[in-house]
Amino acid sequence: MQLDTLFSPTSIAVVGASTNPGSVGYTLTANLLKNGYAGKVYPVNPKTATLFDLPCYTDITAIEDAIDLAIIIIPAASVPQVLRQAGEKNIPAAIIISSGFKETGTTGTALEDELIAIAQEYDIALLGPNCLGFLHPKLGLNASFAVRMPEDGNIAFFSQSGALCTALLDLTAEYLGFSHFASIGNKAALGENELLRYFAQDDHIGVLSFYTEGLTDGKKIIETGRAILARSEPKPIVVLKSGATVAGTRASSSHTGALAGSDTAYQALFDQARIVRADSLEQLIDMLAAFSHNPLPESNRVTIVTNAGGLGVLATDAATKSGLVLAMLSRETQGKLEALLPAAASKHNPVDVLGDALADRYRATLDIVAADDQTDMLLVIVTPQTMTEAKATAEAIIDIKQSSGKPVIACFAGRESFTDGTALLQKNSVTMIPYPEAAAEALAALSQVAQWRKETLSTPFVLDALDREAAQKVIETARAAGRTTLTEMEARAVLTAYGFPFFATYQTTSSEAALAAALKIGKKVALKIVSPDIVHKSDVGGVLLDIAPEDAASAYDRLMAQVKEKVPDARLDGALVVEMSAQDGREIILGLKQEPGLGTLVLAGLGGIFVETFHDVAMRFAPLTEEDAEEMIAGLKSFPILSGARGQAGIHLATLYEMIGRLSQLAEDFPDIAELDINPVLAFPEAKHFRVLDARIRLQP
Amino acid sequence: MQLDTLFSPTSIAVVGASTNPGSVGYTLTANLLKNGYAGKVYPVNPKTATLFDLPCYTDITAIEDAIDLAIIIIPAASVPQVLRQAGEKNIPAAIIISSGFKETGTTGTALEDELIAIAQEYDIALLGPNCLGFLHPKLGLNASFAVRMPEDGNIAFFSQSGALCTALLDLTAEYLGFSHFASIGNKAALGENELLRYFAQDDHIGVLSFYTEGLTDGKKIIETGRAILARSEPKPIVVLKSGATVAGTRASSSHTGALAGSDTAYQALFDQARIVRADSLEQLIDMLAAFSHNPLPESNRVTIVTNAGGLGVLATDAATKSGLVLAMLSRETQGKLEALLPAAASKHNPVDVLGDALADRYRATLDIVAADDQTDMLLVIVTPQTMTEAKATAEAIIDIKQSSGKPVIACFAGRESFTDGTALLQKNSVTMIPYPEAAAEALAALSQVAQWRKETLSTPFVLDALDREAAQKVIETARAAGRTTLTEMEARAVLTAYGFPFFATYQTTSSEAALAAALKIGKKVALKIVSPDIVHKSDVGGVLLDIAPEDAASAYDRLMAQVKEKVPDARLDGALVVEMSAQDGREIILGLKQEPGLGTLVLAGLGGIFVETFHDVAMRFAPLTEEDAEEMIAGLKSFPILSGARGQAGIHLATLYEMIGRLSQLAEDFPDIAELDINPVLAFPEAKHFRVLDARIRLQP
Repeated sequence: MQLDTLFSPTSIAVVGASTNPGSVGYTLTANLLKNGYAGKVYPVNPKTATLFDLPCYTDITAIEDAIDLAIIIIPAASVPQVLRQAGEKNIPAAIIISSGFKETGTTGTALEDELIAIAQEYDIALLGPNCLGFLHPKLGLNASFAVRMPEDGNIAFFSQSGALCTALLDLTAEYLGFSHFASIGNKAALGENELLRYFAQDDHIGVLSFYTEGLTDGKKIIETGRAILARSEPKPIVVLKSGATVAGTRASSSHTGALAGSDTAYQALFDQARIVRADSLEQLIDMLAAFSHNPLPESNRVTIVTNAGGLGVLATDAATKSGLVLAMLSRETQGKLEALLPAAASKHNPVDVLGDALADRYRATLDIVAADDQTDMLLVIVTPQTMTEAKATAEAIIDIKQSSGKPVIACFAGRESFTDGTALLQKNSVTMIPYPEAAAEALAALSQVAQWRKETLSTPFVLDALDREAAQKVIETARAAGRTTLTEMEARAVLTAYGFPFFATYQTTSSEAALAAALKIGKKVALKIVSPDIVHKSDVGGVLLDIAPEDAASAYDRLMAQVKEKVPDARLDGALVVEMSAQDGREIILGLKQEPGLGTLVLAGLGGIFVETFHDVAMRFAPLTEEDAEEMIAGLKSFPILSGARGQAGIHLATLYEMIGRLSQLAEDFPDIAELDINPVLAFPEAKHFRVLDARIRLQP
Repeated sequence: MQLDTLFSPTSIAVVGASTNPGSVGYTLTANLLKNGYAGKVYPVNPKTATLFDLPCYTDITAIEDAIDLAIIIIPAASVPQVLRQAGEKNIPAAIIISSGFKETGTTGTALEDELIAIAQEYDIALLGPNCLGFLHPKLGLNASFAVRMPEDGNIAFFSQSGALCTALLDLTAEYLGFSHFASIGNKAALGENELLRYFAQDDHIGVLSFYTEGLTDGKKIIETGRAILARSEPKPIVVLKSGATVAGTRASSSHTGALAGSDTAYQALFDQARIVRADSLEQLIDMLAAFSHNPLPESNRVTIVTNAGGLGVLATDAATKSGLVLAMLSRETQGKLEALLPAAASKHNPVDVLGDALADRYRATLDIVAADDQTDMLLVIVTPQTMTEAKATAEAIIDIKQSSGKPVIACFAGRESFTDGTALLQKNSVTMIPYPEAAAEALAALSQVAQWRKETLSTPFVLDALDREAAQKVIETARAAGRTTLTEMEARAVLTAYGFPFFATYQTTSSEAALAAALKIGKKVALKIVSPDIVHKSDVGGVLLDIAPEDAASAYDRLMAQVKEKVPDARLDGALVVEMSAQDGREIILGLKQEPGLGTLVLAGLGGIFVETFHDVAMRFAPLTEEDAEEMIAGLKSFPILSGARGQAGIHLATLYEMIGRLSQLAEDFPDIAELDINPVLAFPEAKHFRVLDARIRLQP
């Protein structure tokens, strides 16, 4: 496999190796040579004969031996030529360290496109450009200009930002071990999806993680994430994503030219892909440690053991907030704790062993609570009291982690007094987080992944009455007329073809016709203005509700008059006369929205003024399974209103799920739908009463 | 002043000084002697003649000299006697280290009550019991059994949890300086309010901070917090509060016996008292550092300088989320940056000086951006790149902090590579936080306090038409009848007396009377069941709306029949016939709720099913000023609905504010109101249309 050759090469050519200390070409070549890498290194530099006692080559073609990997560190403009030479020489893998590509604007983008074409032509596995390279500690291979070589370990990490790599390496030195540590730069060819899939195959690796400022194919990431979660050996994925705010997105664009989508869309993407999202660089490190050192817990019940009540409470707060529950220790366990601990100690969870606890009291307590089936994982808090035995307590924690096989995090809330104890924990792969809240949150991340692994997400929707051709025809007609916004009747036709129910509706252009239509409907009607110039009808008085059939003619005249007064210049094409619902339904908003570079989001929420005010909208990327739809709706804050609250009837949820499935199918069948709004569909306790009241569709330009 | 004597004593008696190394009485005496304290120490221990070369006394009365402070470390049962001896000897201050009081149950509580009585009788300033003591570094005075003595500094910190003290001391060693560090334990006499007021007087102190698991007088804390904020020299207050969750509260109760209120009430309290709340122990430390080292900023505009784009984005995200804005650097500034920085660098905020930036590039950039009026504060991010000059860059940051007089936080995102640079920053009182998100949040805390200092909160409500006597009479009548739940008519009478408007209402006990009442009202009416057994009327069909006057008789019969069917055992006392609103008003919920130990909360929110689902309720403790009421309503997520959104008319906000003021007054005048619900008041664009639809009042048992 090509990526094997990229990450485990036996021979490396460095184009742009330099004799100038402090330059990237110098540092990188030195890094290759000084960490015990067993492969051969070929410096390429026409201006010097030797570098670090190795013969230098004038160019890559001058090397007689076969080369696995070319590392290129020369000015951007010359890179395509060298990459082509590498292709001609059948070099299967390359890293382009150089910057000056997509991140700098249109010229750079053209240059980067050239690289992509060459890599495809010669089938080169290409990392970069504008990156730091990678490190593979097990091989003693530092193919980067980062100075620090991490310990070998079970975390594969890659990052869009090179500087974040060096910061992370420095912050985690002697604490975390990495199987691979890669900077992927502009991701011209190899991106997140490819690396996740490659590292997932490696049995040496237990945790996958990356930093990104924007992704380019949401659907693939979702498929990849879910496939990795479903493997028999768990490999949790942890992401740090920046650009969450508008200001942050602007900074991100100027950085590596990523066109980042909105943060809520990314949140939906990560939820759907079953990727754990860290809130901060620090939380990323905590989660990497927790996943790297621990198995997944059975479930979400944590037992806290502490020598300080206050910190136990802080940990309890954070655990509960992040979705853990405190284990309800059995009577038997509590009995044993009663026998063991002083009277003033708390034998409930959090178990307070008191400030004078020596290591043996910790050890005996841990033995008891870890043996309880209710305990899925342990959080052990130690504060520096006069008598505290940090090192011996660390030993007790190490032992209980090994003997119990349960996840354990130690929170040694101190620094100066705990140097020895902390070092011992780290050497024995016990995660140590000095703050109780962060420690609890890291355990919650383990529990989240364990929960995900229990869930099925794979039941496809079975949808009848789909008339793809009819919808296609409507869209083609609009396209032929040069329109990207469908008329109300067209939108209705598309949705009708996909099985959405509407009220009886007639388009009329006179008060007489409105009256006739209303009489035909035979019950109360709504009148809505028809105009290509008006988007928000109700804002300009363009909707009249609850009109008795016999009043339809005068209502028509009133509608025309009041809209004309508000928007005198709008073209008015008459009015729709629409059957009104007899009962009160719940207004639901459904929609589709294309996120550039990510995919199409399916949205759902409780309608009316509240969706705008409370932003209580669920979203997921198409295609959706039945479980996705259920999870969306269950995640709404307004779910109790939909499912029925305070004696009020809920709506027929299965019908709502099915509508979400139909929207997902529509998004899959017509990727040129840029936006679709069903606002609202009226929902009822019985499926047959559901009706779409208003819909809009906008196509890609 | 007595607290001066407590915290700066010239002579200390230690009752329970011990010769047994490892005991609290030994450690504490040793701590008193070994840190350079200039006062005199008198060990009291009848079993030994000398301790640490000092003569021991058999009891406290055996000491001939006058004593400023008695520290008591003996079994709980004997403490009252010793405290009384101290009183007899005119010792003005005491610390009770011993545990075994309120935290252990009823016997302990009785013992603690005895201590309180003795302290009052003899006018003793009493710290504890169940505490660690305190440290006063400037005097070299460690009057605690914590081992570590912090540096002298400008932070006064006190904590309900002693173990949290030792953890915090250890975590902040050689980083933060403290003027005082006190453990207040069970707070029998001296609590948060007293210490805040005392430390606020001390010019040596710049930051006040405490950890609490529950407070006992919200009103006082609000007064204290606001008074401290209003001082000419700012002294920010930072709190860490645990027990945020139900599980957390349980842990807290078993810890020090605090009866903690709900977390939202505490959040309201801290907002109102202008106390900054840290989310975690770690954030507490970050905020203490930021407040301790920096002045308050002019406003909320931050300029970020970084050598790593990715970390700049992470910082930007966190800054924006926490209420900061990125400074819009002037054209002039950007011009200077263009001239200074390489082409690839970002000259917008966040300013990216690129990975190869040496210290001089940082220095020149900082000089430029700090001079810009748009920059209120600086966040300087440094990642460890090959060429990074940590120490010289630290010097540049130290200099810009001193020369600009603006708040500066350094984020050196590394550990191993930055030891020297970080040490230099710390020595020069520059806050160093290695994670960009946390650094931004700490700056946001500075900005929050600066914002608070600009606001006035002191305009009292001027309320007319208050008839306190009328309300008093109604409440007395209910009390006399042995009721704590007022009838609907009584609740209405109380609120009418306080100027709340109601619909015309008649109580009727027959269908004929209902008809007569409805005809008298002369427009559509509502019928509501009257029953002492029914609380949620609509749940049992006890409300009929929109009844035409002529249909009132049959509606009355229907109402009775349907309620009888649902709750056959309820006593039915007829029905209220109520005038209905002509237009659609907004339903607003208003209320009062007593929080045990804290005060009475005034609540307000948009009514209907949404208040329950979205929990969009604002709350503040009585008494409120006009600004409090405005801030409450402006903080609602549904504020746009109330102020008018999407072309819909808003409500008359001033009337709503005034109603809040009237409720606040009611709470002040009648502290025995335990709960009051106005659900809803109908609100309209015009003040005169406001009407209370339903109200309930419950008194304290």
